[in-house]
Amino acid sequence: MTQEEFTQAALDCDHFLPGHYPRSVAKRMREIADSPYAEFRSDMYGNGGFVSVFEQELAELFEKEACVVMPSGTMAQQIALRIWADQAGNKNVAFHPMSHLHTHEHMAYRELHHLDSQLLGEPERLFTLDDLAALSDVPLSSVLIELPQRDLGGQLPTWDELGAITRYAHEQGTKCHLDGARLWECQPYYGRPLAEIVADFDSVYVSFYKILGGLPGAALFGPADFIAETRIWMRRHGGNLPYMFPNAIAAKLGMEKHLPRMASYVAKAAEVAAIFASMPGVRVDPAEPKTNMMHLHFSASKEAMRDAFGDLAVREKVLLVGWLADDGEGCKTELSIGEAALDLSEARIRELLQLAVATG
Amino acid sequence: MTQEEFTQAALDCDHFLPGHYPRSVAKRMREIADSPYAEFRSDMYGNGGFVSVFEQELAELFEKEACVVMPSGTMAQQIALRIWADQAGNKNVAFHPMSHLHTHEHMAYRELHHLDSQLLGEPERLFTLDDLAALSDVPLSSVLIELPQRDLGGQLPTWDELGAITRYAHEQGTKCHLDGARLWECQPYYGRPLAEIVADFDSVYVSFYKILGGLPGAALFGPADFIAETRIWMRRHGGNLPYMFPNAIAAKLGMEKHLPRMASYVAKAAEVAAIFASMPGVRVDPAEPKTNMMHLHFSASKEAMRDAFGDLAVREKVLLVGWLADDGEGCKTELSIGEAALDLSEARIRELLQLAVATG
Repeated sequence: MTQEEFTQAALDCDHFLPGHYPRSVAKRMREIADSPYAEFRSDMYGNGGFVSVFEQELAELFEKEACVVMPSGTMAQQIALRIWADQAGNKNVAFHPMSHLHTHEHMAYRELHHLDSQLLGEPERLFTLDDLAALSDVPLSSVLIELPQRDLGGQLPTWDELGAITRYAHEQGTKCHLDGARLWECQPYYGRPLAEIVADFDSVYVSFYKILGGLPGAALFGPADFIAETRIWMRRHGGNLPYMFPNAIAAKLGMEKHLPRMASYVAKAAEVAAIFASMPGVRVDPAEPKTNMMHLHFSASKEAMRDAFGDLAVREKVLLVGWLADDGEGCKTELSIGEAALDLSEARIRELLQLAVATG
Repeated sequence: MTQEEFTQAALDCDHFLPGHYPRSVAKRMREIADSPYAEFRSDMYGNGGFVSVFEQELAELFEKEACVVMPSGTMAQQIALRIWADQAGNKNVAFHPMSHLHTHEHMAYRELHHLDSQLLGEPERLFTLDDLAALSDVPLSSVLIELPQRDLGGQLPTWDELGAITRYAHEQGTKCHLDGARLWECQPYYGRPLAEIVADFDSVYVSFYKILGGLPGAALFGPADFIAETRIWMRRHGGNLPYMFPNAIAAKLGMEKHLPRMASYVAKAAEVAAIFASMPGVRVDPAEPKTNMMHLHFSASKEAMRDAFGDLAVREKVLLVGWLADDGEGCKTELSIGEAALDLSEARIRELLQLAVATG
């Protein structure tokens, strides 16, 4: 089966293990138009209308002084680290080698902001307090912590380890920035309100699409003077757009729909992980998911598994994995559980997976 | 009348001299949902779906090798100048002192891209070939030309002067970048197809909102290898967003609606300018508008003119100016003619304006 055939088979499916049900372009636009938030006037360059109301609401939810809606997390995080660096007069920032900043942004923190990075720990595991302490002779303006760490399959430090890291950083005069692209997803693991999870961070970013299923966008939180300065950098980046209402309304609708279900997504992810782990030739990472996500490694080749999952999609109209990539030995995928998997029973997933793995 | 009262009066109007009729948030979203372009699948990070189709369509319309849809012109233009500077190994770029880059972007071209600017001519007039030639001892990687020049009320160089500037620049090995934020609006003045107007430019930016009435967004045009590199910088800026379909579809709908009417907007602007110019205490700049836009200067104070236009809005439900700012002597506004003014006759505009100016 070619990649095109697999993509077409995926589009024709009725049921999905990953993510939410697909929504058409028209449906996405109508959801916004039909919402009560469409009653607000348009914002003007992010000022007024629902955007300002939403920023205030988010600031209260996260118990941070101020909030700004931005087009993307890539923009928000560079800006946060830049401001902390300027305030400290210190270009050294620290993050994990698999951080989005280091792996997915063409080194923008260097190319645009001339920041220097100190990489924490090793690519295949979370960094620890010891890794941070090992850098004690390099003063750091900020340290970025990603909760959960996406490229490690959604791993999370324990609550105590997290507290120890932020406490140590603050003792060194280092600001703590939270990469919370998937922060919504780790609330069930920590079992605390979002505001408590982010309390020890000086700046926090969360995303509007991914689990919220919204349009592009991000929120950045921090002290009022910090957020005022982010607005200047947002304009410099070309991110002070004339209207942000579609993005803000879509995010709000996503919060209303998905936040109350987050615990069920995480519980379903644990169930799904156990099914995959019971299959020969499959490894789940982390073995016990901390959030709604996991990485899956198959000992069979990418082509073999694409055929297997593709055939299943054609025959059963169920998509079990959205994509596959070589991982050196066999192949891998990333699985994030959303609303769609809740409609597939444990028995049905097991049955389908047995079919696929037997073929693959 | 306070600013808040003026704003409310403006919102309650039925007729408008500036711009297009206001559309609610819901209407804007439904226009996209109801369009034939909503049949396309969503793009993924700007790839596929209607976004790719639209980029191709725009590249053909402008007869340029390649096109990329970006979140904003601020982003697009910095990126264009940065790439030309890197290619030439020369950080010197030239533009008018009233260019958006120099006045509205918190000096991002310096702060983010470390470019050096050479300012061309004087703030109150267009720069000329002589101004550019006066810089002949400073090698320039690129020169940015804004057509029409917004902060000069939409002035345009003659076709011959424009050709002489781009020819001279190219002889010096300098790339020509077109700031076409309002390029759509100058087609009637030059009386040539858009592709011919932009033919001598190495890179071109056009905007999706403003006269098109769309959502945020911009298109950047240039050679294929240049556009490929802009995509890397767009990601660095945080502008490679997961979906661009709302922006692309809204722009397409705006092109369909407004491009065929552009000549009537420009003709109406000439009519409106003549009416304003005939009133005591009013100066129109440029005296003969080249596009659909002009600046209006009133010898009365901002407060007096706000009262006059505000009272008129309350009594007649017609808004003649959207805002007023001090200009040293009296006050000023910017007027861009769109669909709404077409519904106001010459006699009606004259009558209303006489009322306002008599009061103000």
